[in-house]
Amino acid sequence: MCRKAEERDALKCDRSLDAFFNPRSVAVIGATETLGFGHAPTKNILSHPKIKKFLVNVKGGKVMGVDVLRTVRELPEGVDLAVIMVPSSSVIDVVKECAEKGIRHVIIESAGFSETGDEGARLEREVVKIARANGMRVIGPNCVGVVNTSNMFTTADVDVAVLVKGGVAFVAQSGVFGTALVDRACSEGLGLSKVVTLGNKCDVDEIDLVEYLADDEETKVIGLYVEGVKPRRGRRMIDVFRAASAKKPILVLKSGRTEAGSKAVKSHTGSLAGSDKVFDAAVKQSGAIRVESIDELFYTAMVLASQPLPPDGDVAIITNSGSLGAMMCDELELLGLKLAVLLPETVDKLRKVTPPWASCRNPVDVGPAIIESAIPAIEILGRDQNVGFIVMIFAIPGIVSSPRYFNADLTPFFEILGETASKTGKPTVTLGFGDERIIKMAEKGLGKSRIPVLRNLTLTAKAVASLYEYKKLKNKTDKNKSI
Amino acid sequence: MCRKAEERDALKCDRSLDAFFNPRSVAVIGATETLGFGHAPTKNILSHPKIKKFLVNVKGGKVMGVDVLRTVRELPEGVDLAVIMVPSSSVIDVVKECAEKGIRHVIIESAGFSETGDEGARLEREVVKIARANGMRVIGPNCVGVVNTSNMFTTADVDVAVLVKGGVAFVAQSGVFGTALVDRACSEGLGLSKVVTLGNKCDVDEIDLVEYLADDEETKVIGLYVEGVKPRRGRRMIDVFRAASAKKPILVLKSGRTEAGSKAVKSHTGSLAGSDKVFDAAVKQSGAIRVESIDELFYTAMVLASQPLPPDGDVAIITNSGSLGAMMCDELELLGLKLAVLLPETVDKLRKVTPPWASCRNPVDVGPAIIESAIPAIEILGRDQNVGFIVMIFAIPGIVSSPRYFNADLTPFFEILGETASKTGKPTVTLGFGDERIIKMAEKGLGKSRIPVLRNLTLTAKAVASLYEYKKLKNKTDKNKSI
Repeated sequence: MCRKAEERDALKCDRSLDAFFNPRSVAVIGATETLGFGHAPTKNILSHPKIKKFLVNVKGGKVMGVDVLRTVRELPEGVDLAVIMVPSSSVIDVVKECAEKGIRHVIIESAGFSETGDEGARLEREVVKIARANGMRVIGPNCVGVVNTSNMFTTADVDVAVLVKGGVAFVAQSGVFGTALVDRACSEGLGLSKVVTLGNKCDVDEIDLVEYLADDEETKVIGLYVEGVKPRRGRRMIDVFRAASAKKPILVLKSGRTEAGSKAVKSHTGSLAGSDKVFDAAVKQSGAIRVESIDELFYTAMVLASQPLPPDGDVAIITNSGSLGAMMCDELELLGLKLAVLLPETVDKLRKVTPPWASCRNPVDVGPAIIESAIPAIEILGRDQNVGFIVMIFAIPGIVSSPRYFNADLTPFFEILGETASKTGKPTVTLGFGDERIIKMAEKGLGKSRIPVLRNLTLTAKAVASLYEYKKLKNKTDKNKSI
Repeated sequence: MCRKAEERDALKCDRSLDAFFNPRSVAVIGATETLGFGHAPTKNILSHPKIKKFLVNVKGGKVMGVDVLRTVRELPEGVDLAVIMVPSSSVIDVVKECAEKGIRHVIIESAGFSETGDEGARLEREVVKIARANGMRVIGPNCVGVVNTSNMFTTADVDVAVLVKGGVAFVAQSGVFGTALVDRACSEGLGLSKVVTLGNKCDVDEIDLVEYLADDEETKVIGLYVEGVKPRRGRRMIDVFRAASAKKPILVLKSGRTEAGSKAVKSHTGSLAGSDKVFDAAVKQSGAIRVESIDELFYTAMVLASQPLPPDGDVAIITNSGSLGAMMCDELELLGLKLAVLLPETVDKLRKVTPPWASCRNPVDVGPAIIESAIPAIEILGRDQNVGFIVMIFAIPGIVSSPRYFNADLTPFFEILGETASKTGKPTVTLGFGDERIIKMAEKGLGKSRIPVLRNLTLTAKAVASLYEYKKLKNKTDKNKSI
């Protein structure tokens, strides 16, 4: 398990991980149509329109109407990728046969390796030995592999029909969690570029992935969930993350921060969580942004992937709820951010588009006049040189859209609001609070201009702070470059 | 504004606030059917089947088909409650007329008082003077009044048809935010008992409300959103909160914690936020539980209202995602909670109901075997004397319910899971992560046994911690009582 760095580097004869995401041909080993483990990957790969696919299962016969080979030996030479889903006890033989057939990329989805104890760890070391001897790269074991939305190729337990293309790449350690991240992204309309679950990371780890994704054109933000960094990879992590951070933001979520958490990750993916302080220092040194929760990872990625970096200037808040406005002020100040001091002409202009009782200082509180006032107000705020970021808060009463009361469709309002915000050229996020139907209308309307709708005030503030943090880093690295 | 405590107490000739929630007769002053401010309160009050109602508007005529009186003077004597929605400039006259008509309870929804500056503050002082001289209690101004689900009476901008009865009372300061809280509760199925928005709190404040709600049978948990405590009410707050906390948990969310936040609340409801440290110390002294965000207020209230207090014992986690399990371990430990050390016989029994690769220590990780294993596992955990609280995490892949893949309806599974958890007699919360359709199934199934489904890991841990915190307080106060 504890290989020397040089040995590990020797393993990387094929530096490109591209065949994991863009294989021309794939062999599914352990293909099955039984409802359970293996079904969805088999189905997803089989239904891909362009890739050449081969199914292998000792039972032979047909799976989902396709002929099945009984052994890897029956495969043609040089298949790009093998996806292995056989029981752990058979994995060594299968990997050996793959090596013989010239397969250089392998995803091992099967569990039962180092996460289960000594015997599993031995099996895993054996896999690495074979891979190293044959110039193979391995993702896994104990994972569900990859999702690539640019060609809709996936080896994971996800519903291909609902995948949304976008700029966020997630790298997760475990399969279940990675799948749930994809499901949640689909449910909330977060666009993904690539998702990888690494499992026990016997070979490919998050550092390799960050290096790969840094140059992936579709990926605008890299979000990592890490349980532990493999021994002697700390220095490499800092170097790779630093180089990648200069190109795009990296968000890092790590578990095993406490004693109880460390024990849990050990029995989950066999990971050594290590000292959280050391990890934290390394992340900071590398320019990556550490996040504290899944929701923060999720929403910060959403904002970073969709919004431009803020120009000079501080945060302007526009709200229809004074309470939520005040809470947002608190959160922003606690994160070290400042409220923009609006120019006198901005305040004058705001007065003209809001009712007399509206508050035209920052936060701009338009109260019940949100439908009439928010759009011109955002335009005005966008022109103020002191404003670098616009945070829009809406808590519109459900009666407005209720068929029993006002029965209004607010989607067109949110659509124009989104266009207006987008035209300011300044990053904008919205926080939706209250009635679910109205928040859905906002997602639909604002979504057309890629203005995110968040549902958690604290995390909205954190996402704003992360965009400023990344801007600072970017300014620093760009300056270094120009010198 | 800065009345002496004695003067203030003199105001309370009618100590009961009951007429605000259970009036036999109500006058709506400024009744209107125009779509906008005033429409929903008018409609909601008019549609109440039992209350005697009177509409008043200088314009006369009919509103929503009901005859309208032109002045308050035309009202009969002794109407229980007046809801005032006329422009602020007319409020003084209307309050005077209400006093003459023997009305003792008034909700002023109109804005344009101390939140707007000196002239508004003068108007507000005038209102208080009239009220004091006539033994009236006033809620507001600048609010939307009350919601009472036990008789479905409301003066607020809410959709009565979707209100859900339950054990949570919210007291908010502003109308928009209070309305949004109700809307969100309706959207997420959180059952409410009473909701009050206090606005500028010229008379009735959160301290009065806590005193009232402490003895309200329908209310199991009191959730407060506060922008500032009125001068010289600090001591009274501690006394009232302490007495109420001995009966039911009080959750307190306060804004104006920072300089920016303090400024914002000043222009919102004219509140003086005061020192956050002083406020925090007072809350702690009173036994109330301070929460840090709306979402924490919301979800903690949901858990406290639905779950029993934990018996002796620590937290057991059951999960199908090792990653989420590990993150939950971190959060619980960071909050000072302990993971239960499972009894050897518990581990043995768990092994029998889970596959060989499952982890039967705490966290219990059943992985993909969740459907088969979770129900017997919860039963087994419930019998372990070391377990005081069960946290169940599910991140079930969307393919399981997708019509294109397994097409399973998991509602019956969640229903039995909920029944089983409920039978353990131990508090249980669940965290749902991933596919929205599956989380909705969980809400439906688990909802039958009132097992909450939360969507945020950090806040799930915080809710667990709050239940333990309240138990500790309760043990202390009960012990004091018995001595």
